[in-house]
Amino acid sequence: MSAENNKTAAEFSQNWKLIKKTINSEKPLIHHITNNVTVNDCANLTLNWGALPVMAPAAEESAQMVENASALVLNLGTISSIQLESMLQAGRRANQLEIPIILDPVGVGATKFRTDAAQQILSELKIALIKGNKGEISLLAGKTAEVKGVESIGEYEEIAENASLLAQRLDTAVVVSSDTDLIAEGSQLAEINRGHPLMGEVVGTGCMLGSTLAVFAATAKNSGLSLFEAAKTAVYYYSLAGEKAAAKENTPARFKIEFMDQIYLLG
Amino acid sequence: MSAENNKTAAEFSQNWKLIKKTINSEKPLIHHITNNVTVNDCANLTLNWGALPVMAPAAEESAQMVENASALVLNLGTISSIQLESMLQAGRRANQLEIPIILDPVGVGATKFRTDAAQQILSELKIALIKGNKGEISLLAGKTAEVKGVESIGEYEEIAENASLLAQRLDTAVVVSSDTDLIAEGSQLAEINRGHPLMGEVVGTGCMLGSTLAVFAATAKNSGLSLFEAAKTAVYYYSLAGEKAAAKENTPARFKIEFMDQIYLLG
Amino acid sequence: MSAENNKTAAEFSQNWKLIKKTINSEKPLIHHITNNVTVNDCANLTLNWGALPVMAPAAEESAQMVENASALVLNLGTISSIQLESMLQAGRRANQLEIPIILDPVGVGATKFRTDAAQQILSELKIALIKGNKGEISLLAGKTAEVKGVESIGEYEEIAENASLLAQRLDTAVVVSSDTDLIAEGSQLAEINRGHPLMGEVVGTGCMLGSTLAVFAATAKNSGLSLFEAAKTAVYYYSLAGEKAAAKENTPARFKIEFMDQIYLLG
Repeated sequence: MSAENNKTAAEFSQNWKLIKKTINSEKPLIHHITNNVTVNDCANLTLNWGALPVMAPAAEESAQMVENASALVLNLGTISSIQLESMLQAGRRANQLEIPIILDPVGVGATKFRTDAAQQILSELKIALIKGNKGEISLLAGKTAEVKGVESIGEYEEIAENASLLAQRLDTAVVVSSDTDLIAEGSQLAEINRGHPLMGEVVGTGCMLGSTLAVFAATAKNSGLSLFEAAKTAVYYYSLAGEKAAAKENTPARFKIEFMDQIYLLG
Repeated sequence: MSAENNKTAAEFSQNWKLIKKTINSEKPLIHHITNNVTVNDCANLTLNWGALPVMAPAAEESAQMVENASALVLNLGTISSIQLESMLQAGRRANQLEIPIILDPVGVGATKFRTDAAQQILSELKIALIKGNKGEISLLAGKTAEVKGVESIGEYEEIAENASLLAQRLDTAVVVSSDTDLIAEGSQLAEINRGHPLMGEVVGTGCMLGSTLAVFAATAKNSGLSLFEAAKTAVYYYSLAGEKAAAKENTPARFKIEFMDQIYLLG
Repeated sequence: MSAENNKTAAEFSQNWKLIKKTINSEKPLIHHITNNVTVNDCANLTLNWGALPVMAPAAEESAQMVENASALVLNLGTISSIQLESMLQAGRRANQLEIPIILDPVGVGATKFRTDAAQQILSELKIALIKGNKGEISLLAGKTAEVKGVESIGEYEEIAENASLLAQRLDTAVVVSSDTDLIAEGSQLAEINRGHPLMGEVVGTGCMLGSTLAVFAATAKNSGLSLFEAAKTAVYYYSLAGEKAAAKENTPARFKIEFMDQIYLLG
């Protein structure tokens, strides 16, 4: 197990060197149409990875803005009809230009409007990667989300099945963030057992993982990595930064500051 | 005086134990339709109290989102006609389900639009608790707000009268945040002389008090407390966290981080 | 050079004392119609300077809100048609009342919509001061922005020419934030060689400089300073706070906290 872990760590380290080199040489622009709650965090975290964030929510320009971007993040956190229209326009342009789209279906299932919005995005756009928590991914996979109460191995197997099901049905990568993070694509499935519970005590760590996955998706191809490898590496280093930050700070507000700086220090 | 204070502190400590137990067992969802400026702070502070924040501003879903909530915060900080419509829809549903609504009439009186919005909310919805500063509460009580210059005992008595007047007219609880905080409901009036001036040097401490009052209002009944007792306890502990943070940090940005963590440490 | 620098520092110190006195006595209200990404930062920084921020984006009230303001910030970071309309209404009222308008044309040139919005603002409103980076100012001056790659003396001279050109054509002050900051007005041109690279590693330092310039523009006249002198002093102290913060913190999230507190400590 320890030898296996070391092997994995060495592999991720190699991947990260490749990604980092691409980030530094390309300074990829990551366009976000995202929620008001964590938009500042997502912008700063993108910058801390060495990429350039742009947050242009208006449909009047979002499709043109995406033309210079290397990835597009669609985050449903504070979705409205107007914002959905902007997402669809930007998404169509991104699809034409083969710019990867990362979808974070925040709170899907909580309201009919939100569920419909997510379904419309998934039916009209080709999404490269979906990132969600267990409930969100299960719902998109067509299952009834039942994620209250204590986690069990049974639940783990169920969510892994749902993630793979969704990944295969939509021909996309799927990342499930949880105590054990899952990455699914095609017949491949990986888990990352890193991170720290304090990451769940801060608003925005889910959204910032979406931005992180966008940075890695934007640079995967030119780093010679598959999206699956890039996503695994993203989750691994994101979680590792959480562990490092938790070793220094044990309250959420101070932890968040330290976490964002640990991402910066990775570069 | 000191014995009286100790008695009060012991009473609040007992109340907080009851509230905390309810928060931990129920994980109440606090729905916010709030301003863009402090939305992240309000979400994090709600989480730090142990409750679950949700910020879903769109009228397309806000009424459905509130169905799972234990309290609804309406904050007028960046109010628009569209947002007002969403507040009214969510508020009506909250009233049907007897979910307490906390109103923070930020800047009421500053413009006709803002004053009209507050009046419409108060005439169409049953508000459980209004939190404001002296000017906002005086204006809603129908008085001309004149709160510039040095505070005097005369002003204190006037604002206490206005708070009670408003509380009785609307059959609501009223919290006035100031150097001395006031809590009024029916014929009851309490004051809390805690807190620290640095709380006034940070944007969002007013809004975060609104979220705090929502957490306490959401859990009052199942904790066996009246809304009046719960509101007093909320203000007391919120102010206490401010004092503790000010003992550690004396500049506003660092103070804010420490303040938010002190709230977390209360749990 | 050192004697010259000392002379400059003493001059700015004298200016800052005058500005600070005016801020303290007038508590100027700075109205912002600004982007969602950095709105909280701008509000806090305005407060840290000793002024009072108000962020009221809606066209339903922005023109009335500006009546009590001492300066108006228009920041195009997340511009939409609805927000542009609000900016124009508030701007017209500010012009009538001779309240200085500070324009931050974030990302102008990136999309047609954004460029058109900036041009419409410049053609319909009298702007007191434009703050931008090299690309934004060059574009508004009618030049093709070409600012990628390593900076050279040639580029410095070109941007200085563009800043002066824009300042004279629109009869406005122009601030270009870069490694060397430039301030242009009429035939006058000044440069400030202060600051720290970490300021470029944090989202919002550009927007917060806009708020800073608004605070200084709001108080220039009553401090007996020209707008040109006030703007130079603003850039100087803003940069100085960055240097002081960088002496204490060398990662961006911690640096940002320290930077905001250094502004507070100037007062």
